[in-house]
Amino acid sequence: MDISYIKKIGFFGVGLMGGSLVKALKKECPHYFISGYARSKKSYDRLIKADILDEVEIDYKKVVKNADVVVLSLPVNIIIDFLKKISPFLKKGAIVFDLGSSKKEIESAALKYLSKNVNFVPCHPLCGKERGGVEFSSDSLYQKTVCIITSPLKSKAVLTVKELWLKVGAEVFFMDSVTHDKILSKVSHLPHLISFALTKLVPADYLKYSAGSFKDLTRISNSAPQIWTDILFSNKKNILKDLNEFIEVLKEFESLIEKNEKEKVSDLIELVNAKQKLII
Amino acid sequence: MDISYIKKIGFFGVGLMGGSLVKALKKECPHYFISGYARSKKSYDRLIKADILDEVEIDYKKVVKNADVVVLSLPVNIIIDFLKKISPFLKKGAIVFDLGSSKKEIESAALKYLSKNVNFVPCHPLCGKERGGVEFSSDSLYQKTVCIITSPLKSKAVLTVKELWLKVGAEVFFMDSVTHDKILSKVSHLPHLISFALTKLVPADYLKYSAGSFKDLTRISNSAPQIWTDILFSNKKNILKDLNEFIEVLKEFESLIEKNEKEKVSDLIELVNAKQKLII
Repeated sequence: MDISYIKKIGFFGVGLMGGSLVKALKKECPHYFISGYARSKKSYDRLIKADILDEVEIDYKKVVKNADVVVLSLPVNIIIDFLKKISPFLKKGAIVFDLGSSKKEIESAALKYLSKNVNFVPCHPLCGKERGGVEFSSDSLYQKTVCIITSPLKSKAVLTVKELWLKVGAEVFFMDSVTHDKILSKVSHLPHLISFALTKLVPADYLKYSAGSFKDLTRISNSAPQIWTDILFSNKKNILKDLNEFIEVLKEFESLIEKNEKEKVSDLIELVNAKQKLII
Repeated sequence: MDISYIKKIGFFGVGLMGGSLVKALKKECPHYFISGYARSKKSYDRLIKADILDEVEIDYKKVVKNADVVVLSLPVNIIIDFLKKISPFLKKGAIVFDLGSSKKEIESAALKYLSKNVNFVPCHPLCGKERGGVEFSSDSLYQKTVCIITSPLKSKAVLTVKELWLKVGAEVFFMDSVTHDKILSKVSHLPHLISFALTKLVPADYLKYSAGSFKDLTRISNSAPQIWTDILFSNKKNILKDLNEFIEVLKEFESLIEKNEKEKVSDLIELVNAKQKLII
Protein backbone atom coordinates (compact mmCIF):
# COMPACT_ATOMS: atom_id res chain seq x y z
CA MET A 1 0.00 0.00 0.00
CA ASP A 2 1.45 3.34 -1.01
CA ILE A 3 0.93 5.83 1.80
CA SER A 4 3.62 8.28 0.76
CA TYR A 5 0.98 10.92 -0.03
CA ILE A 6 0.40 11.53 3.71
CA LYS A 7 1.86 14.85 4.83
CA LYS A 8 -0.21 16.08 7.76
CA ILE A 9 -1.82 14.14 10.59
CA GLY A 10 -4.14 15.81 13.11
CA PHE A 11 -4.44 14.32 16.62
CA PHE A 12 -7.29 14.73 19.08
CA GLY A 13 -6.22 13.18 22.38
CA VAL A 14 -2.47 13.12 22.97
CA GLY A 15 -2.33 11.11 26.19
CA LEU A 16 -0.89 7.65 26.77
CA MET A 17 -2.39 6.05 23.63
CA GLY A 18 -2.37 9.07 21.30
CA GLY A 19 1.02 10.26 22.52
CA SER A 20 2.53 6.82 21.98
CA LEU A 21 1.14 6.73 18.44
CA VAL A 22 2.59 10.19 17.73
CA LYS A 23 6.01 9.07 19.02
CA ALA A 24 5.94 5.79 17.09
CA LEU A 25 4.85 7.46 13.83
CA LYS A 26 7.47 10.19 14.24
CA LYS A 27 10.11 7.50 14.66
CA GLU A 28 9.02 5.61 11.53
CA CYS A 29 8.04 8.58 9.36
CA PRO A 30 9.87 11.66 10.66
CA HIS A 31 8.65 13.77 7.72
CA TYR A 32 4.98 13.71 8.88
CA PHE A 33 3.72 17.04 10.14
CA ILE A 34 1.75 16.21 13.27
CA SER A 35 -0.66 18.72 14.74
CA GLY A 36 -2.30 18.09 18.13
CA TYR A 37 -5.35 19.59 19.76
CA ALA A 38 -5.18 21.04 23.30
CA ARG A 39 -8.54 21.35 25.05
CA SER A 40 -7.35 23.81 27.70
CA LYS A 41 -4.46 26.07 28.63
CA LYS A 42 -3.24 23.38 31.04
CA SER A 43 -3.33 20.73 28.35
CA TYR A 44 -1.58 23.17 25.94
CA ASP A 45 1.30 23.69 28.40
CA ARG A 46 1.58 19.95 29.01
CA LEU A 47 1.82 19.19 25.29
CA ILE A 48 4.36 21.97 24.67
CA LYS A 49 6.43 20.56 27.53
CA ALA A 50 6.14 17.00 26.13
CA ASP A 51 7.65 18.34 22.90
CA ILE A 52 6.48 15.57 20.60
CA LEU A 53 4.18 17.50 18.24
CA ASP A 54 5.07 19.83 15.36
CA GLU A 55 2.16 22.06 16.33
CA VAL A 56 -0.13 22.38 19.36
CA GLU A 57 -3.47 24.08 18.61
CA ILE A 58 -6.36 25.15 20.81
CA ASP A 59 -8.49 25.77 17.69
CA TYR A 60 -9.67 22.32 16.53
CA LYS A 61 -10.39 23.63 13.03
CA LYS A 62 -6.67 24.31 12.56
CA VAL A 63 -5.78 20.75 13.59
CA VAL A 64 -8.16 19.35 10.97
CA LYS A 65 -7.29 21.83 8.20
CA ASN A 66 -5.55 20.09 5.27
CA ALA A 67 -4.94 16.98 7.38
CA ASP A 68 -4.69 13.79 5.28
CA VAL A 69 -5.38 11.73 8.39
CA VAL A 70 -7.20 12.68 11.60
CA VAL A 71 -6.80 10.50 14.71
CA LEU A 72 -9.32 10.48 17.57
CA SER A 73 -7.75 9.01 20.71
CA LEU A 74 -10.39 9.97 23.28
CA PRO A 75 -13.04 8.41 25.53
CA VAL A 76 -15.92 6.91 23.47
CA ASN A 77 -18.43 9.73 24.16
CA ILE A 78 -15.94 12.44 23.33
CA ILE A 79 -14.98 10.71 20.07
CA ILE A 80 -18.65 10.99 19.12
CA ASP A 81 -18.70 14.73 20.05
CA PHE A 82 -15.63 15.38 17.92
CA LEU A 83 -16.89 13.43 14.90
CA LYS A 84 -19.75 15.93 14.83
CA LYS A 85 -17.56 19.00 15.47
CA ILE A 86 -14.78 18.34 12.97
CA SER A 87 -16.96 17.03 10.14
CA PRO A 88 -17.49 20.37 8.29
CA PHE A 89 -13.75 21.16 8.31
CA LEU A 90 -12.31 17.88 7.01
CA LYS A 91 -10.44 17.91 3.72
CA LYS A 92 -12.11 15.94 0.89
CA GLY A 93 -10.75 12.38 0.91
CA ALA A 94 -9.40 12.67 4.46
CA ILE A 95 -9.13 9.54 6.54
CA VAL A 96 -10.46 9.69 10.10
CA PHE A 97 -9.69 6.89 12.52
CA ASP A 98 -10.38 6.42 16.23
CA LEU A 99 -8.94 4.27 19.02
CA GLY A 100 -12.15 3.71 20.99
CA SER A 101 -12.65 0.58 23.09
CA SER A 102 -16.21 -0.14 21.96
CA LYS A 103 -17.15 0.29 18.33
CA LYS A 104 -20.86 -0.01 17.52
CA GLU A 105 -21.87 3.44 18.84
CA ILE A 106 -18.88 5.17 17.25
CA GLU A 107 -19.62 3.52 13.91
CA SER A 108 -23.23 4.78 14.03
CA ALA A 109 -22.08 8.30 14.94
CA ALA A 110 -19.58 8.34 12.05
CA LEU A 111 -22.31 7.30 9.61
CA LYS A 112 -24.52 10.06 10.96
CA TYR A 113 -22.07 12.95 11.13
CA LEU A 114 -19.37 12.44 8.48
CA SER A 115 -19.88 13.28 4.82
CA LYS A 116 -19.49 10.66 2.10
CA ASN A 117 -16.26 12.11 0.73
CA VAL A 118 -14.47 11.39 4.01
CA ASN A 119 -13.28 7.89 5.04
CA PHE A 120 -13.86 6.66 8.55
CA VAL A 121 -11.82 3.65 9.77
CA PRO A 122 -12.72 2.44 13.28
CA CYS A 123 -9.72 0.99 15.13
CA HIS A 124 -9.08 -0.54 18.52
CA PRO A 125 -5.50 -1.26 19.57
CA LEU A 126 -5.58 -3.84 22.41
CA CYS A 127 -3.02 -2.33 24.71
CA GLY A 128 -2.58 0.26 27.41
CA LYS A 129 -1.07 0.87 30.78
CA GLU A 130 -2.56 1.52 34.19
CA ARG A 131 -1.19 5.04 34.14
CA GLY A 132 -2.53 7.50 31.58
CA GLY A 133 -1.10 10.74 30.25
CA VAL A 134 1.42 11.80 27.61
CA GLU A 135 4.16 11.53 30.29
CA PHE A 136 3.81 7.73 30.19
CA SER A 137 3.62 7.46 26.38
CA SER A 138 6.27 5.47 24.57
CA ASP A 139 7.21 4.87 20.94
CA SER A 140 7.14 1.12 21.62
CA LEU A 141 3.64 0.84 23.18
CA TYR A 142 2.18 -0.77 20.03
CA GLN A 143 5.07 -3.16 19.33
CA LYS A 144 3.85 -6.78 19.22
CA THR A 145 0.28 -5.84 20.11
CA VAL A 146 -2.99 -6.48 18.30
CA CYS A 147 -5.05 -3.78 16.60
CA ILE A 148 -8.59 -4.57 15.48
CA ILE A 149 -10.06 -2.64 12.56
CA THR A 150 -13.82 -3.03 12.67
CA SER A 151 -14.32 -2.94 8.97
CA PRO A 152 -14.68 -6.21 7.09
CA LEU A 153 -14.28 -4.22 3.85
CA LYS A 154 -10.71 -3.54 2.80
CA SER A 155 -11.05 -0.19 1.03
CA LYS A 156 -8.05 1.96 0.13
CA ALA A 157 -8.57 4.00 3.32
CA VAL A 158 -8.74 0.85 5.47
CA LEU A 159 -5.53 -0.50 3.94
CA THR A 160 -3.82 2.87 4.51
CA VAL A 161 -4.70 2.81 8.21
CA LYS A 162 -3.63 -0.85 8.41
CA GLU A 163 -0.26 0.19 6.99
CA LEU A 164 0.14 2.84 9.71
CA TRP A 165 -0.56 0.23 12.44
CA LEU A 166 1.92 -2.19 10.86
CA LYS A 167 4.52 0.58 10.83
CA VAL A 168 4.21 1.05 14.61
CA GLY A 169 4.53 -2.69 15.23
CA ALA A 170 0.95 -3.95 15.69
CA GLU A 171 -0.65 -7.01 14.12
CA VAL A 172 -3.95 -6.11 12.44
CA PHE A 173 -7.22 -8.12 12.53
CA PHE A 174 -10.45 -7.26 10.71
CA MET A 175 -13.96 -7.88 11.99
CA ASP A 176 -17.33 -6.12 12.14
CA SER A 177 -18.17 -3.84 15.06
CA VAL A 178 -20.87 -6.15 16.46
CA THR A 179 -18.39 -9.05 16.72
CA HIS A 180 -15.75 -6.70 18.14
CA ASP A 181 -18.03 -5.48 20.92
CA LYS A 182 -19.10 -9.05 21.75
CA ILE A 183 -15.49 -10.28 22.03
CA LEU A 184 -14.16 -7.21 23.85
CA SER A 185 -16.95 -7.41 26.40
CA LYS A 186 -15.58 -10.81 27.46
CA VAL A 187 -11.82 -10.25 27.18
CA SER A 188 -11.62 -6.67 28.44
CA HIS A 189 -14.80 -4.99 29.70
CA LEU A 190 -15.96 -7.85 31.96
CA PRO A 191 -12.42 -8.29 33.43
CA HIS A 192 -12.42 -4.60 34.39
CA LEU A 193 -15.82 -4.90 36.10
CA ILE A 194 -14.62 -8.01 37.94
CA SER A 195 -11.50 -6.20 39.12
CA PHE A 196 -13.55 -3.18 40.29
CA ALA A 197 -15.94 -5.47 42.18
CA LEU A 198 -13.13 -7.43 43.88
CA THR A 199 -11.34 -4.26 45.01
CA LYS A 200 -14.63 -2.87 46.31
CA LEU A 201 -15.30 -6.10 48.26
CA VAL A 202 -12.00 -6.44 50.11
CA PRO A 203 -11.69 -4.33 53.32
CA ALA A 204 -8.85 -1.79 53.29
CA ASP A 205 -7.16 -3.35 56.33
CA TYR A 206 -6.75 -6.68 54.46
CA LEU A 207 -4.68 -5.05 51.71
CA LYS A 208 -1.34 -5.45 53.46
CA TYR A 209 -1.76 -9.21 53.11
CA SER A 210 -2.26 -9.09 49.35
CA ALA A 211 -0.23 -11.74 47.57
CA GLY A 212 0.57 -11.88 43.85
CA SER A 213 -2.85 -13.24 42.91
CA PHE A 214 -4.73 -10.33 44.44
CA LYS A 215 -2.29 -7.80 42.97
CA ASP A 216 -2.76 -9.35 39.51
CA LEU A 217 -6.55 -9.15 39.71
CA THR A 218 -6.74 -5.63 41.08
CA ARG A 219 -4.06 -3.91 38.99
CA ILE A 220 -6.63 -2.59 36.48
CA SER A 221 -8.83 -1.26 39.32
CA ASN A 222 -6.73 1.85 38.80
CA SER A 223 -8.37 2.50 35.40
CA ALA A 224 -9.81 5.96 34.71
CA PRO A 225 -13.46 6.43 35.83
CA GLN A 226 -14.55 8.57 32.87
CA ILE A 227 -13.06 6.30 30.21
CA TRP A 228 -14.46 3.13 31.81
CA THR A 229 -17.92 4.48 32.56
CA ASP A 230 -18.08 5.42 28.90
CA ILE A 231 -16.97 1.98 27.74
CA LEU A 232 -19.33 0.10 30.07
CA PHE A 233 -22.37 2.10 28.94
CA SER A 234 -21.45 2.10 25.25
CA ASN A 235 -21.33 -1.72 25.30
CA LYS A 236 -24.09 -2.16 27.85
CA LYS A 237 -26.02 -5.02 26.23
CA ASN A 238 -23.01 -7.35 25.88
CA ILE A 239 -21.66 -6.49 29.31
CA LEU A 240 -24.94 -7.21 31.10
CA LYS A 241 -25.21 -10.54 29.25
CA ASP A 242 -21.61 -11.49 30.14
CA LEU A 243 -22.00 -10.42 33.76
CA ASN A 244 -24.90 -12.83 34.05
CA GLU A 245 -22.99 -15.64 32.36
CA PHE A 246 -20.04 -15.02 34.68
CA ILE A 247 -22.25 -15.14 37.77
CA GLU A 248 -23.60 -18.48 36.50
CA VAL A 249 -20.06 -19.92 36.29
CA LEU A 250 -19.31 -18.67 39.82
CA LYS A 251 -22.51 -20.37 41.01
CA GLU A 252 -21.42 -23.59 39.30
CA PHE A 253 -18.21 -23.55 41.40
CA GLU A 254 -20.22 -22.59 44.47
CA SER A 255 -22.58 -25.53 44.06
CA LEU A 256 -19.71 -28.01 43.51
CA ILE A 257 -17.93 -26.76 46.65
CA GLU A 258 -21.15 -26.91 48.67
CA LYS A 259 -21.72 -30.51 47.57
CA ASN A 260 -18.10 -31.52 48.34
CA GLU A 261 -17.49 -32.48 44.70
CA LYS A 262 -13.69 -32.38 44.99
CA GLU A 263 -13.02 -34.35 41.84
CA LYS A 264 -15.29 -32.19 39.69
CA VAL A 265 -13.63 -29.01 41.00
CA SER A 266 -10.20 -30.48 40.29
CA ASP A 267 -11.33 -31.43 36.75
CA LEU A 268 -12.61 -27.92 36.17
CA ILE A 269 -9.29 -26.40 37.27
CA GLU A 270 -7.45 -28.81 34.95
CA LEU A 271 -9.63 -27.71 32.04
CA VAL A 272 -8.96 -24.07 32.94
CA ASN A 273 -5.18 -24.77 33.19
CA ALA A 274 -5.20 -26.07 29.62
CA LYS A 275 -7.13 -23.08 28.30
CA GLN A 276 -4.87 -20.62 30.13
CA LYS A 277 -1.88 -22.03 28.26
CA LEU A 278 -3.48 -20.81 24.99
CA ILE A 279 -3.34 -17.18 26.12
CA ILE A 280 -0.37 -15.59 24.42
CA MET B 1 16.58 -15.03 69.34
CA ASP B 2 19.42 -17.51 69.50
CA ILE B 3 18.88 -20.20 66.86
CA SER B 4 22.45 -21.37 66.67
CA TYR B 5 21.47 -24.76 68.14
CA ILE B 6 19.83 -25.78 64.85
CA LYS B 7 21.90 -28.40 63.03
CA LYS B 8 19.53 -30.51 60.97
CA ILE B 9 16.39 -29.50 59.08
CA GLY B 10 14.12 -32.08 57.44
CA PHE B 11 12.02 -31.06 54.43
CA PHE B 12 8.83 -32.67 53.16
CA GLY B 13 7.97 -31.09 49.82
CA VAL B 14 10.93 -29.67 47.91
CA GLY B 15 9.13 -27.98 45.03
CA LEU B 16 8.88 -24.28 44.24
CA MET B 17 8.13 -23.16 47.82
CA GLY B 18 10.13 -25.78 49.74
CA GLY B 19 13.02 -25.70 47.29
CA SER B 20 13.22 -21.91 47.49
CA LEU B 21 13.30 -22.10 51.30
CA VAL B 22 16.09 -24.71 51.16
CA LYS B 23 18.11 -22.50 48.81
CA ALA B 24 17.54 -19.35 50.87
CA LEU B 25 18.42 -21.10 54.17
CA LYS B 26 21.53 -22.66 52.61
CA LYS B 27 22.62 -19.22 51.48
CA GLU B 28 22.12 -17.66 54.93
CA CYS B 29 23.18 -20.63 57.07
CA PRO B 30 25.43 -22.88 54.96
CA HIS B 31 26.23 -25.09 57.98
CA TYR B 32 22.67 -26.46 58.22
CA PHE B 33 22.37 -30.11 57.26
CA ILE B 34 19.22 -30.27 55.14
CA SER B 35 17.57 -33.61 54.45
CA GLY B 36 14.70 -33.87 51.95
CA TYR B 37 12.04 -36.51 51.43
CA ALA B 38 11.44 -38.03 47.97
CA ARG B 39 8.05 -39.69 47.55
CA SER B 40 9.03 -41.71 44.46
CA LYS B 41 11.98 -42.79 42.35
CA LYS B 42 11.13 -40.01 39.89
CA SER B 43 11.05 -37.43 42.65
CA TYR B 44 14.34 -38.85 44.05
CA ASP B 45 16.07 -38.43 40.67
CA ARG B 46 14.70 -34.92 40.31
CA LEU B 47 16.00 -33.86 43.73
CA ILE B 48 19.41 -35.43 43.15
CA LYS B 49 19.60 -33.55 39.86
CA ALA B 50 18.56 -30.28 41.54
CA ASP B 51 21.53 -30.75 43.89
CA ILE B 52 20.35 -28.44 46.67
CA LEU B 53 19.97 -30.94 49.55
CA ASP B 54 22.63 -32.56 51.73
CA GLU B 55 20.63 -35.78 51.70
CA VAL B 56 17.69 -37.13 49.70
CA GLU B 57 15.73 -39.88 51.47
CA ILE B 58 12.87 -42.12 50.41
CA ASP B 59 12.41 -43.25 54.03
CA TYR B 60 10.55 -40.43 55.79
CA LYS B 61 11.71 -41.68 59.20
CA LYS B 62 15.31 -40.86 58.24
CA VAL B 63 14.37 -37.32 57.24
CA VAL B 64 12.77 -36.75 60.65
CA LYS B 65 15.44 -38.51 62.71
CA ASN B 66 17.34 -36.04 64.94
CA ALA B 67 15.98 -33.09 63.00
CA ASP B 68 15.76 -29.89 65.06
CA VAL B 69 13.28 -28.47 62.59
CA VAL B 70 10.89 -30.23 60.21
CA VAL B 71 9.28 -28.29 57.34
CA LEU B 72 6.07 -29.40 55.62
CA SER B 73 5.73 -27.67 52.25
CA LEU B 74 2.91 -29.73 50.76
CA PRO B 75 -0.77 -29.43 49.76
CA VAL B 76 -3.02 -28.97 52.83
CA ASN B 77 -4.38 -32.55 52.87
CA ILE B 78 -0.94 -34.08 52.54
CA ILE B 79 0.42 -31.89 55.34
CA ILE B 80 -2.24 -33.46 57.55
CA ASP B 81 -1.26 -36.99 56.42
CA PHE B 82 2.39 -36.32 57.21
CA LEU B 83 1.70 -34.78 60.62
CA LYS B 84 0.21 -38.16 61.54
CA LYS B 85 2.97 -40.21 59.91
CA ILE B 86 6.02 -38.40 61.28
CA SER B 87 4.69 -37.81 64.80
CA PRO B 88 6.18 -40.96 66.46
CA PHE B 89 9.65 -40.30 65.01
CA LEU B 90 10.13 -36.64 65.94
CA LYS B 91 12.94 -35.74 68.31
CA LYS B 92 11.83 -34.36 71.67
CA GLY B 93 11.65 -30.55 71.46
CA ALA B 94 11.65 -30.57 67.66
CA ILE B 95 9.94 -27.69 65.84
CA VAL B 96 7.56 -28.58 63.02
CA PHE B 97 6.26 -25.86 60.72
CA ASP B 98 4.16 -25.95 57.57
CA LEU B 99 3.58 -23.61 54.61
CA GLY B 100 -0.10 -24.44 53.98
CA SER B 101 -2.45 -21.85 52.47
CA SER B 102 -5.34 -22.44 54.87
CA LYS B 103 -4.66 -22.95 58.56
CA LYS B 104 -7.66 -23.99 60.70
CA GLU B 105 -7.71 -27.65 59.56
CA ILE B 106 -3.94 -28.03 59.82
CA GLU B 107 -3.97 -26.54 63.31
CA SER B 108 -6.62 -29.07 64.42
CA ALA B 109 -4.66 -31.96 62.89
CA ALA B 110 -1.46 -30.86 64.67
CA LEU B 111 -3.28 -30.74 67.98
CA LYS B 112 -4.65 -34.21 67.32
CA TYR B 113 -1.53 -36.00 66.06
CA LEU B 114 1.55 -34.32 67.58
CA SER B 115 2.77 -35.04 71.08
CA LYS B 116 3.13 -32.29 73.68
CA ASN B 117 6.92 -32.34 73.65
CA VAL B 118 7.00 -31.22 70.01
CA ASN B 119 6.33 -27.61 68.90
CA PHE B 120 4.10 -26.93 65.94
CA VAL B 121 4.26 -23.47 64.30
CA PRO B 122 1.77 -22.93 61.46
CA CYS B 123 3.12 -20.60 58.75
CA HIS B 124 1.85 -19.19 55.50
CA PRO B 125 4.26 -17.26 53.28
CA LEU B 126 2.22 -15.09 50.88
CA CYS B 127 4.11 -15.68 47.68
CA GLY B 128 4.46 -18.11 44.85
CA LYS B 129 4.74 -18.34 41.10
CA GLU B 130 2.44 -19.74 38.42
CA ARG B 131 4.97 -22.48 37.70
CA GLY B 132 5.66 -25.07 40.37
CA GLY B 133 8.58 -27.46 40.81
CA VAL B 134 12.06 -27.32 42.29
CA GLU B 135 13.33 -26.24 38.85
CA PHE B 136 11.66 -22.85 39.34
CA SER B 137 12.78 -22.41 42.96
CA SER B 138 14.96 -19.45 43.84
CA ASP B 139 16.87 -18.28 46.91
CA SER B 140 15.17 -14.88 46.59
CA LEU B 141 11.52 -16.04 46.45
CA TYR B 142 10.82 -14.88 50.02
CA GLN B 143 12.66 -11.56 49.80
CA LYS B 144 10.31 -8.65 50.61
CA THR B 145 7.28 -10.89 51.03
CA VAL B 146 4.92 -11.40 53.94
CA CYS B 147 4.79 -14.55 56.06
CA ILE B 148 1.88 -15.05 58.43
CA ILE B 149 2.42 -17.19 61.55
CA THR B 150 -0.98 -18.23 62.85
CA SER B 151 -0.03 -18.23 66.46
CA PRO B 152 -0.89 -15.25 68.60
CA LEU B 153 1.39 -16.71 71.32
CA LYS B 154 5.07 -15.90 70.91
CA SER B 155 6.69 -19.01 72.41
CA LYS B 156 10.37 -19.83 71.98
CA ALA B 157 9.53 -22.13 69.06
CA VAL B 158 7.42 -19.44 67.37
CA LEU B 159 10.22 -16.89 67.72
CA THR B 160 12.72 -19.42 66.33
CA VAL B 161 10.60 -19.93 63.22
CA LYS B 162 10.08 -16.17 62.94
CA GLU B 163 13.88 -15.78 62.95
CA LEU B 164 14.19 -18.26 60.05
CA TRP B 165 11.63 -16.32 57.99
CA LEU B 166 13.41 -13.04 58.73
CA LYS B 167 16.68 -14.63 57.60
CA VAL B 168 15.22 -15.44 54.16
CA GLY B 169 13.88 -11.89 53.77
CA ALA B 170 10.19 -12.10 54.74
CA GLU B 171 8.24 -9.75 57.01
CA VAL B 172 6.38 -11.71 59.69
CA PHE B 173 2.83 -11.06 60.94
CA PHE B 174 1.03 -12.93 63.73
CA MET B 175 -2.67 -13.74 63.87
CA ASP B 176 -4.93 -16.63 64.83
CA SER B 177 -5.88 -19.26 62.26
CA VAL B 178 -9.55 -18.21 62.09
CA THR B 179 -8.60 -14.63 61.19
CA HIS B 180 -5.99 -15.93 58.72
CA ASP B 181 -8.51 -18.08 56.88
CA LYS B 182 -11.03 -15.25 56.75
CA ILE B 183 -8.51 -12.79 55.28
CA LEU B 184 -6.90 -15.27 52.89
CA SER B 185 -10.28 -16.28 51.53
CA LYS B 186 -10.76 -12.71 50.28
CA VAL B 187 -7.22 -11.82 49.16
CA SER B 188 -6.18 -15.14 47.66
CA HIS B 189 -8.75 -17.96 47.51
CA LEU B 190 -11.60 -15.91 46.03
CA PRO B 191 -9.27 -14.28 43.43
CA HIS B 192 -8.25 -17.78 42.28
CA LEU B 193 -11.88 -18.88 41.93
CA ILE B 194 -12.67 -15.69 40.01
CA SER B 195 -9.76 -16.31 37.66
CA PHE B 196 -10.82 -19.94 37.09
CA ALA B 197 -14.39 -18.83 36.36
CA LEU B 198 -13.33 -16.10 33.90
CA THR B 199 -11.02 -18.44 31.98
CA LYS B 200 -13.80 -21.05 31.86
CA LEU B 201 -16.27 -18.48 30.51
CA VAL B 202 -14.22 -17.05 27.64
CA PRO B 203 -14.33 -19.12 24.41
CA ALA B 204 -10.95 -20.41 23.21
CA ASP B 205 -11.20 -18.56 19.87
CA TYR B 206 -11.41 -15.21 21.72
CA LEU B 207 -8.05 -15.75 23.41
CA LYS B 208 -5.97 -14.29 20.59
CA TYR B 209 -7.60 -10.93 21.34
CA SER B 210 -6.65 -10.92 25.01
CA ALA B 211 -5.25 -7.59 26.12
CA GLY B 212 -3.28 -6.88 29.28
CA SER B 213 -6.37 -6.82 31.51
CA PHE B 214 -7.43 -10.35 30.55
CA LYS B 215 -3.87 -11.65 30.86
CA ASP B 216 -3.61 -10.15 34.36
CA LEU B 217 -6.84 -11.75 35.53
CA THR B 218 -6.18 -15.18 34.06
CA ARG B 219 -2.49 -15.64 34.92
CA ILE B 220 -3.29 -17.63 38.08
CA SER B 221 -5.71 -19.88 36.15
CA ASN B 222 -2.57 -21.94 35.63
CA SER B 223 -2.50 -22.92 39.35
CA ALA B 224 -2.20 -26.61 40.26
CA PRO B 225 -5.55 -28.48 40.49
CA GLN B 226 -4.62 -30.66 43.50
CA ILE B 227 -3.25 -27.81 45.60
CA TRP B 228 -6.18 -25.53 44.83
CA THR B 229 -8.92 -28.10 45.28
CA ASP B 230 -7.38 -28.77 48.68
CA ILE B 231 -7.31 -25.09 49.61
CA LEU B 232 -10.86 -24.39 48.44
CA PHE B 233 -12.29 -27.30 50.43
CA SER B 234 -10.19 -26.69 53.53
CA ASN B 235 -11.50 -23.11 53.71
CA LYS B 236 -14.95 -23.90 52.38
CA LYS B 237 -17.09 -21.86 54.79
CA ASN B 238 -15.24 -18.55 54.22
CA ILE B 239 -15.02 -19.10 50.48
CA LEU B 240 -18.73 -19.78 50.05
CA LYS B 241 -19.54 -16.66 52.10
CA ASP B 242 -17.13 -14.50 50.04
CA LEU B 243 -18.37 -15.92 46.74
CA ASN B 244 -21.85 -14.77 47.70
CA GLU B 245 -20.66 -11.33 48.78
CA PHE B 246 -18.73 -11.00 45.52
CA ILE B 247 -21.79 -11.92 43.45
CA GLU B 248 -23.73 -9.23 45.35
CA VAL B 249 -21.17 -6.57 44.39
CA LEU B 250 -21.33 -7.72 40.74
CA LYS B 251 -25.13 -7.40 40.91
CA GLU B 252 -24.77 -3.90 42.34
CA PHE B 253 -22.76 -2.90 39.23
CA GLU B 254 -25.25 -4.77 37.02
CA SER B 255 -28.20 -2.89 38.48
CA LEU B 256 -26.47 0.51 38.11
CA ILE B 257 -25.62 -0.21 34.47
CA GLU B 258 -29.15 -1.41 33.76
CA LYS B 259 -30.59 1.79 35.24
CA ASN B 260 -28.14 4.00 33.30
CA GLU B 261 -26.67 5.38 36.54
CA LYS B 262 -23.50 6.67 34.87
CA GLU B 263 -22.54 8.99 37.69
CA LYS B 264 -22.88 6.32 40.36
CA VAL B 265 -20.75 3.89 38.32
CA SER B 266 -18.10 6.57 37.83
CA ASP B 267 -18.16 7.31 41.60
CA LEU B 268 -17.73 3.61 42.37
CA ILE B 269 -14.73 3.37 40.02
CA GLU B 270 -13.22 6.44 41.69
CA LEU B 271 -13.61 4.83 45.10
CA VAL B 272 -12.01 1.65 43.77
CA ASN B 273 -9.13 3.67 42.23
CA ALA B 274 -8.34 5.13 45.65
CA LYS B 275 -8.41 1.73 47.35
CA GLN B 276 -6.23 0.16 44.67
CA LYS B 277 -3.51 2.72 45.43
CA LEU B 278 -3.26 1.24 48.95
CA ILE B 279 -2.19 -2.15 47.58
CA ILE B 280 1.56 -2.40 47.99
